[in-house]
Amino acid sequence: MNYSMVFYILGHILKFESAFLILPVIVGLLYGEDDVTAYLFVAALCLILGMVLSRKRPASPSLYTREGFVTVALSWIIMSVFGAMPFVLSGDIPSYVDALFETISGFTTTGSSILTDVEALSHANLFWRSFTHWIGGMGVFVFIMAILPLMGGSTMNLMKAESPGPSVSKLVPHVKDTAKILYGMYLAITVAEIILLCVFGMPLFDSLCTTFGTVGTGGFGIKNSSIAAYSPALQNIVTIFMILSGINYSFYFLILSKKVKDAFHIEEVRWYLLIILISVIAIIYDIRSLYPTIGETARHAFFQVGSIITTTGYATTDFDLWPSMSKTILVVLMFIGACAGSTGGGMKVSRLVILFKTIKKELSLISHPREVRKIRMDGHVVEHSILRSSNVFLVIYFVLLLGSTLLISIDEFDFTTNFTAVVSALNNIGPGLNLVGPTQNFSLFSPFSKVVLMFDMLAGRLELFPMMALLIPSTWKRR
Amino acid sequence: MNYSMVFYILGHILKFESAFLILPVIVGLLYGEDDVTAYLFVAALCLILGMVLSRKRPASPSLYTREGFVTVALSWIIMSVFGAMPFVLSGDIPSYVDALFETISGFTTTGSSILTDVEALSHANLFWRSFTHWIGGMGVFVFIMAILPLMGGSTMNLMKAESPGPSVSKLVPHVKDTAKILYGMYLAITVAEIILLCVFGMPLFDSLCTTFGTVGTGGFGIKNSSIAAYSPALQNIVTIFMILSGINYSFYFLILSKKVKDAFHIEEVRWYLLIILISVIAIIYDIRSLYPTIGETARHAFFQVGSIITTTGYATTDFDLWPSMSKTILVVLMFIGACAGSTGGGMKVSRLVILFKTIKKELSLISHPREVRKIRMDGHVVEHSILRSSNVFLVIYFVLLLGSTLLISIDEFDFTTNFTAVVSALNNIGPGLNLVGPTQNFSLFSPFSKVVLMFDMLAGRLELFPMMALLIPSTWKRR
Repeated sequence: MNYSMVFYILGHILKFESAFLILPVIVGLLYGEDDVTAYLFVAALCLILGMVLSRKRPASPSLYTREGFVTVALSWIIMSVFGAMPFVLSGDIPSYVDALFETISGFTTTGSSILTDVEALSHANLFWRSFTHWIGGMGVFVFIMAILPLMGGSTMNLMKAESPGPSVSKLVPHVKDTAKILYGMYLAITVAEIILLCVFGMPLFDSLCTTFGTVGTGGFGIKNSSIAAYSPALQNIVTIFMILSGINYSFYFLILSKKVKDAFHIEEVRWYLLIILISVIAIIYDIRSLYPTIGETARHAFFQVGSIITTTGYATTDFDLWPSMSKTILVVLMFIGACAGSTGGGMKVSRLVILFKTIKKELSLISHPREVRKIRMDGHVVEHSILRSSNVFLVIYFVLLLGSTLLISIDEFDFTTNFTAVVSALNNIGPGLNLVGPTQNFSLFSPFSKVVLMFDMLAGRLELFPMMALLIPSTWKRR
Repeated sequence: MNYSMVFYILGHILKFESAFLILPVIVGLLYGEDDVTAYLFVAALCLILGMVLSRKRPASPSLYTREGFVTVALSWIIMSVFGAMPFVLSGDIPSYVDALFETISGFTTTGSSILTDVEALSHANLFWRSFTHWIGGMGVFVFIMAILPLMGGSTMNLMKAESPGPSVSKLVPHVKDTAKILYGMYLAITVAEIILLCVFGMPLFDSLCTTFGTVGTGGFGIKNSSIAAYSPALQNIVTIFMILSGINYSFYFLILSKKVKDAFHIEEVRWYLLIILISVIAIIYDIRSLYPTIGETARHAFFQVGSIITTTGYATTDFDLWPSMSKTILVVLMFIGACAGSTGGGMKVSRLVILFKTIKKELSLISHPREVRKIRMDGHVVEHSILRSSNVFLVIYFVLLLGSTLLISIDEFDFTTNFTAVVSALNNIGPGLNLVGPTQNFSLFSPFSKVVLMFDMLAGRLELFPMMALLIPSTWKRR
């Protein structure tokens, strides 16, 4: 382990966090709130610690894969550790474990909350809580790389550890340029949604927070009733932007490069849209008797499907009251998740397509044992290493899923609650079913269970390997 | 597809089934029941059809892997199709779909029932129902091979398709001798349990049926209260034989070969016993306040853990009333299952050990990318093809699990019911939780859901690939 380089990068992370914390300070000043001092104090703390850690560039700046993994995992943990402090200092979330849960839930764009009354929070806290979604959505390293030529040749290993999906596709040859383009598109979508929401009558502050939660696929609402508090038109705008945020950003890059036909030929995007369509139709049929008009039924079906498959977690209705088939469809969508290379979580559509193609290939091998068949995506042969890591991903995923469900069952809540709480955390969704349904929250769990769920949220956001690497003793040996 | 060979083998299967059906005829005659005619009729039908299909040996007796898979899958289906008839003809189970569910549940040693009142069945029907467990436990092909030198060089492909676990270990060089030794040991354990149960006061008929369900790890009881109807001593005998039946039969072979030390060094057996011990201790702690004495608590904990991990499914108490942690432990045990090479179902302890070793290896590859490390079991390197098939097994398993849960959710029962019903079917357990808990039954599901669960039971017993092969169009092409 190249410890000096790891600390150097952690220092930079803290400096960036310090800068991010200035935004809630501004919000607090505008609304004349006392929390300003809490945010200023933590910002100063991050700045000083960051300067100390990054005061000199290490002799060897290179990072191996495992060091990239560990650095990214530690960065996300340290961001959350400091990001949670203002909630405690301002008094809005007295327990530090709860504040840490809320912050990790924010950065990982999960959106599970321990708060029973969101509306009691100050504007500064509400803003910071939602803004963590925006930072976590595209990833903090992508942000840093877009701005600083920080880490020389090690950047690819950091990108690899932080970006969602089975493989990293660089849009353009240079990592730095890729990062800039990604954040450019991210910013454009963000601004577009803010403007549209304002135009259709949402207050600016609400628009900002709602948009952060949408484009980051996070799901923290600033109303107790989530998005149900707003008009149908606003709900539909959020639906559209959730679904757009779950699409692979390569799609937008191709469109910007005037390759519209290529964009719509991306297999993952086609499957993603097809899954949404089928789910919506099945749910509309299943819940047709619950709402007065077909329009309202379709609106709720589209919203909830978009919210769950993109792992956002907003709600316009209590889907825990829906019939069992619709709930099961939503649980299956939780596993599927959004496209790789989007801001969404879950197992990713492309990884599932690869796994299905693997099944098909293995079954056809039974008939034709000597056949050599390659698995292809978008016409290209999928590398063996990606196939293997997709398989191993599923194995680890399955073990974490069952293991975590077992661990949190110590709290003795019912099986559906425990199972869907873990599914929700591991896929960065937000709500589950029963006691953690969309109108409930995660405050009921013991501190131990909360720690388990925090690990799952981070493991889910960072695609398992970086967090698992922390658990392996050999990771910590000096080089 | 070598259709003439497939039909030839199916003919033999039907002739064997005809012979098996004579046993309930004898039981019926002893008890003076009318069902005798139903069993005689179906036995005659099977005999005639079997003779027609197997009247001449095909020119080419060889079977490729896929043909072995398809033959085994079709054999199990055809055995069930005919085995279900006496239940309908005797009038005890009027619906054929229900009778088929019950028979598939029997042959696959699942033990899920659609009956609300088991005790209303005739002795002949009760005997046949339990006897299907005994046939299905060790497998019908192993039985045929032990008796007939039927299929020349193709036998290995049939064994491979029918026997549980990631790899087939031949105990001795010849398949036929292996089959004989396996059935010999199976018979010895069966006789030992029958005698012990009789000695401790169980009536002979009950002892026979209970033993078939134990050693085949099936779980059909002949009392409405399952094994709770018998004395604690009898319950403990069943516990011991359930746990013994979940052990890899190589263990007994090594002991018979006087290699006792080698036997206790089988990694899978050690893990299996360790998992049982840890689960029992955790459950005793969790349910300590539910029963008057620690002895009774331990008895119920041992029984239920043994019943679930071996995928038998007997019950001495309604574990659906246990606290959530104990229930979750049982659900996790459902996934784990028994040892490979035993009569039990589930994913198999050895497959999970291989998957865990794969995770460990992949994570250590992050630190040491150029390291070449082999996965070993019992000191031997695990072949690449077994590693790969274990991975693919998990992928298919996961897809079947979610897909089936989704399909049966059409019946609109709650999530825990649907999920544990599928887990129970796919792992050949018997009971699930909630509406399919140990005191409930599967009669509530629609015919469609029953068909889905029947597929899952067969897929689980035959380790996924044979049933999946049926779904692939290329399987059905003529050679």
